[in-house]
Amino acid sequence: MEETFVPFRGIKNDFKARIMCYKQDWTSGFRAGARILAPTLYIFFASAIPVISFGEQLERNTDGTLTAVQTLASTALCGIVHSIIGGQPLLILGVAEPTVLMYTFMYNFAKDRKDLGHKLFLPWTGWVCVWTALLLFLLAVLGACSIINRFTRLTGELFGLLIAMLFMQQAIKGLVEEFSVPKSQTEGINQNALQSSWLFGNGMFALVLSFGLLFTGLGSRKARSWRYGTGWLRGFVADYGVPLMILLWTGVSYIPVNNVPRGIPRRLFSPNPWSPGAYTNWTVVKEMLNVPPLYIIGAFIPATMIAVLYYFDHSVASQLAQQKEFNIRKPSSYHYDLLLLGFLTILCGLIGIPPSNGVIPQSPMHTKSLATLKHQILRHKLVSTARTSMQKNMNLSQLYQSMKEAYDVMQTPLVPQMPPTLGLRELKESTVALASSHGYIDAPVDEIVFDVNKDVDDLLPVEVKEQRLSNLLQSLMVGACVAAMPLLKKIPTSVLWGYFAFMAIESLPGNQFWERILYLFTAPSRRYKLLEEHHATFVETVPLKAIALFTLFQTAYLLLCFGITWIPIAGVLFPLLIMLLVPVRQYFLPHFFKGAHLQELDAAAYEEAPAIAFNMSFDDVSNHAATVNISGGEILDEIITRSRGEIRRTQSSKASSSTATPIGDIRPANSPQMLRRIPSPRVTALRGESSLGLNGNELKLKQTP
Amino acid sequence: MEETFVPFRGIKNDFKARIMCYKQDWTSGFRAGARILAPTLYIFFASAIPVISFGEQLERNTDGTLTAVQTLASTALCGIVHSIIGGQPLLILGVAEPTVLMYTFMYNFAKDRKDLGHKLFLPWTGWVCVWTALLLFLLAVLGACSIINRFTRLTGELFGLLIAMLFMQQAIKGLVEEFSVPKSQTEGINQNALQSSWLFGNGMFALVLSFGLLFTGLGSRKARSWRYGTGWLRGFVADYGVPLMILLWTGVSYIPVNNVPRGIPRRLFSPNPWSPGAYTNWTVVKEMLNVPPLYIIGAFIPATMIAVLYYFDHSVASQLAQQKEFNIRKPSSYHYDLLLLGFLTILCGLIGIPPSNGVIPQSPMHTKSLATLKHQILRHKLVSTARTSMQKNMNLSQLYQSMKEAYDVMQTPLVPQMPPTLGLRELKESTVALASSHGYIDAPVDEIVFDVNKDVDDLLPVEVKEQRLSNLLQSLMVGACVAAMPLLKKIPTSVLWGYFAFMAIESLPGNQFWERILYLFTAPSRRYKLLEEHHATFVETVPLKAIALFTLFQTAYLLLCFGITWIPIAGVLFPLLIMLLVPVRQYFLPHFFKGAHLQELDAAAYEEAPAIAFNMSFDDVSNHAATVNISGGEILDEIITRSRGEIRRTQSSKASSSTATPIGDIRPANSPQMLRRIPSPRVTALRGESSLGLNGNELKLKQTP
Repeated sequence: MEETFVPFRGIKNDFKARIMCYKQDWTSGFRAGARILAPTLYIFFASAIPVISFGEQLERNTDGTLTAVQTLASTALCGIVHSIIGGQPLLILGVAEPTVLMYTFMYNFAKDRKDLGHKLFLPWTGWVCVWTALLLFLLAVLGACSIINRFTRLTGELFGLLIAMLFMQQAIKGLVEEFSVPKSQTEGINQNALQSSWLFGNGMFALVLSFGLLFTGLGSRKARSWRYGTGWLRGFVADYGVPLMILLWTGVSYIPVNNVPRGIPRRLFSPNPWSPGAYTNWTVVKEMLNVPPLYIIGAFIPATMIAVLYYFDHSVASQLAQQKEFNIRKPSSYHYDLLLLGFLTILCGLIGIPPSNGVIPQSPMHTKSLATLKHQILRHKLVSTARTSMQKNMNLSQLYQSMKEAYDVMQTPLVPQMPPTLGLRELKESTVALASSHGYIDAPVDEIVFDVNKDVDDLLPVEVKEQRLSNLLQSLMVGACVAAMPLLKKIPTSVLWGYFAFMAIESLPGNQFWERILYLFTAPSRRYKLLEEHHATFVETVPLKAIALFTLFQTAYLLLCFGITWIPIAGVLFPLLIMLLVPVRQYFLPHFFKGAHLQELDAAAYEEAPAIAFNMSFDDVSNHAATVNISGGEILDEIITRSRGEIRRTQSSKASSSTATPIGDIRPANSPQMLRRIPSPRVTALRGESSLGLNGNELKLKQTP
Repeated sequence: MEETFVPFRGIKNDFKARIMCYKQDWTSGFRAGARILAPTLYIFFASAIPVISFGEQLERNTDGTLTAVQTLASTALCGIVHSIIGGQPLLILGVAEPTVLMYTFMYNFAKDRKDLGHKLFLPWTGWVCVWTALLLFLLAVLGACSIINRFTRLTGELFGLLIAMLFMQQAIKGLVEEFSVPKSQTEGINQNALQSSWLFGNGMFALVLSFGLLFTGLGSRKARSWRYGTGWLRGFVADYGVPLMILLWTGVSYIPVNNVPRGIPRRLFSPNPWSPGAYTNWTVVKEMLNVPPLYIIGAFIPATMIAVLYYFDHSVASQLAQQKEFNIRKPSSYHYDLLLLGFLTILCGLIGIPPSNGVIPQSPMHTKSLATLKHQILRHKLVSTARTSMQKNMNLSQLYQSMKEAYDVMQTPLVPQMPPTLGLRELKESTVALASSHGYIDAPVDEIVFDVNKDVDDLLPVEVKEQRLSNLLQSLMVGACVAAMPLLKKIPTSVLWGYFAFMAIESLPGNQFWERILYLFTAPSRRYKLLEEHHATFVETVPLKAIALFTLFQTAYLLLCFGITWIPIAGVLFPLLIMLLVPVRQYFLPHFFKGAHLQELDAAAYEEAPAIAFNMSFDDVSNHAATVNISGGEILDEIITRSRGEIRRTQSSKASSSTATPIGDIRPANSPQMLRRIPSPRVTALRGESSLGLNGNELKLKQTP
């Protein structure tokens, strides 16, 4: 994206680009059929549960002015509008923790002013929203999002880890509170349950429920690689494991009945939307003119903070949902989405509900789950094509041709400015070339052992099912939550804390900052294990000292940001601190790190990428070339590793095969050396392994002499 | 062992054979130095904790006549005697669950007789022990143990799984009881703690503590393969993880102090050995003549049952501790040990404590932990030898020679009737042969990449540090427990239930019966994964239908045995039911299964082993030989897999290399086919991976043209 600040140009470009995909956004979604429910439900829970919990937090902090009904309504409303007329449908909108912090601060300010007070709090926030929206319009029109390229991996991943820390903090805080008398919401709780004995029991039960949900939830996401059970069951558990586990542990929470008083375990609390008084806030707009003019103008101050927050949060959430590793095909839409966010903010302000914005980690979680969906669909199609071809006794070249055709049919019709199809085409060529060098190419396929299931997995690049349906459906479901409040109230709060911890942990894999931290803690004698797997290139090209220094700096900065959120009022300024990373990265870090290393650790579009000599001793594997040079530019591939859909960068197999030696004289042991010498197949299986397993009969291996 | 029933011959043979190793049993133990503490502590906990719990059970059932003091004393006394003058020092002695059941039954019988009653209960059991001992003498003298060969894998593994089920049952029962008022032992428990609210809290806390111990305990056993932390730390956690975790969770149990009444969580209860009345039973011998003559004679009836039980239990525990997979070098000693057990039984009877016998799963756990110890010691020595040789620029052949010499120095001086050293010698030959066929043999070693750490692992066969020291030390520690009772009482009972579950789970891997059950539940599409790993040969040679039928029969029989233990009085007959398996296996099963299949599933010495054609399609990998025949007789190797030291049988690499094709034209992917084609290295790493990891610098790979 060029950095242009011509008014309206960004919005116009975004709109023009997205409108071309608009029809396909819908047709593609509907064509996925019932499978779309897996990512939808997954994201619905990731979206609804925190929003309900934030609603409870707001209720406590605003003396009941705002509740979970309002946060759910805002999330549903903004989600529906964004999924239909928004630019980037991968982006998930919701009421986020920073918004809750902001509203708490504003309520504490307003309730003590006698000409504002509890009564005019919501009308005043209406004015704040109006100002915020005006600022957002300004930013969108002036093209502020074109500096999004300066938000490098450094910034985005630090923000992602900060959010994970906040989620984990909430999980721990929530669990600890289960041991003490609840601060509010004692309705429906038997007074007996407040005795110290029952508080102890409640806390211990909460530990059981939350850890139960956390472990089974994490376990179910890996179900595809289980060894037991049918493929259908494994796939079902992997796709719907989290909702299932919430059901399961809510069920478990109902087991103790004997002598256990009502209120143990504690459950979600929120007024029913049809209870009296639940609607007072919807007519806030009528009272907005009652706010004294001084406060109307003063509302500009919190508005600037919220605008900065939303500008950053919305853009980074969108950016993380479109990371390079996902091979997103459709265009981004930062400016247009920011403009739309302005309108949504005004709308929310006028009806007295807290506004929503793009959320982390839900947005990247959404993209990951859609990548899994796309993989399943492509895989299903290609496996059946390959099977048909093999029955017709085709040779390898013909087989790939027919698979290529099937693959192309499945492709998104590309709009002109799209990059050409990477993936299958290139893969086919390199694989065919490799096969022909071994004389495989002309033999009928079934004799060369085209291992259908496995080889298809190796061929499939990471792609994302980009469409609007899953976002719309999950927003509608969040809306339905308002009506289903009596059902939701059956979920124990402790299950919710377990779910917060689950979300924090689920957001870690693929975050390279996190992986660098782990790498530093890896015993030196075990680092080779990382090299056996698909790994980020920096592991091989950047010296450990530089990695350590960079990671330490980032960690210190993260802890600083985390510390700031603990300061009562200044806390809301933490987005500014994160934005400060942009100039720090651009002007400060290059003094401490070599350009090549910085480029590997944190590629920035405004820096040149110099080639790095790639001649570490363990890759000294070839007769032909004692030293293999792989320039940074050759690193093309971004693949998703087998475990839980995390994203890593790997050395491309093109690079590997260009240095491939005849496989004749390798050492007969599956040692690390060997693993490095064989051009690594592109492992694209997502989240555990594919549901279509290997069939014993396909394990034959025969060679032509 | 020949089946001879000449009186005393069995005892004489055992004694003569073991006396030759006697000195070495001690010197070898002392030479291991401080490392011996790892298996010692591991077995001490596995031995002491159940014995304490059985003591509590006995106390409840005998109205306080027998307590944990007596069970600990018996275990320590018998353990010390056995470790010093016993035959097989791998065998661990202790008071076992069946003994507890027996004593409970006898107490219920005695307490209601007015001329016996509570007062003469212990003197009467003294007579039972005398009769039992006489029967055991008779069995030992007449050579009853020579039919031990008829106790096939079928019988032993079924018994092992039954014990695991009993342990798991106790864990679950114990946990459930934490939610209700304790049946006895309310001393030291605040009456408040018996309110339903505190019972609920106690139960929930028990869930947290027991699952905490179970998961962290299981996790710590795998610490060697962790990626983080130093090698020393990983090794320490793996060796001492279980004691550490008991300490940790006992510490956690002390965290809640505010308002929590004494007695939550519940802790071990046992009288201090110096409290008044704890010594009354030691003088039981003086009262034995007060028992009416009719009861003295009647004592013969329970004695026969106990004798059968001990004969079976002692022999099977000894047999499981000496399974073929462990490559035990020193001779067995069934008859002599049974004779000694007789003397120990009399001794225990006369001082009024319940006798001990050989226990499962502790005995095989002991051998496994000693195999790990031996592996560490051998590895340490061979790695340093290899490093020295490589510095001297030796070639591969010289390197192996020097390692062979170092290895021989470490060997047990073999007594004449021992089999020749398998392992390193044969391995060296096949590996050198393989290397020379690739032209490696004459180049200096460091260029061919002798990957020191990894290759040493591949060379090491499974061996066991056979000595008496660990058994003696753990018995002494159990004895010290009697004095340390005030400390032991700090352990919460819930930690104990978690430990019972841990022991049940730890005993499963390596049990082929259990693995067959898992195999049947493995999805057909995932069975190939088993073939990629080291696996038992039956998986490839016996049709699934036969495996399923055999396993179903065994499962049904197991459930029958388990059901019998629930019947109050007939329950003590369950050893008879298991012994019945011996004729069932010999005369009944051959009518339903082919001899070759039966031999694979459950090798019996009295049956011939016919060769099985080995021509399943997935092994159809060679140009030279379209069908590879590997006779059952060629299956030589028994190896320990990487995970938690379980034992599996694998296809020997000798068999693989006899069919090896030039590695020139294999397919460039680490697909299952390929993994099968490369002669699999002998993976002998025990329990996770070795503590000495790979060093990045050793990863170079260069070939001579």
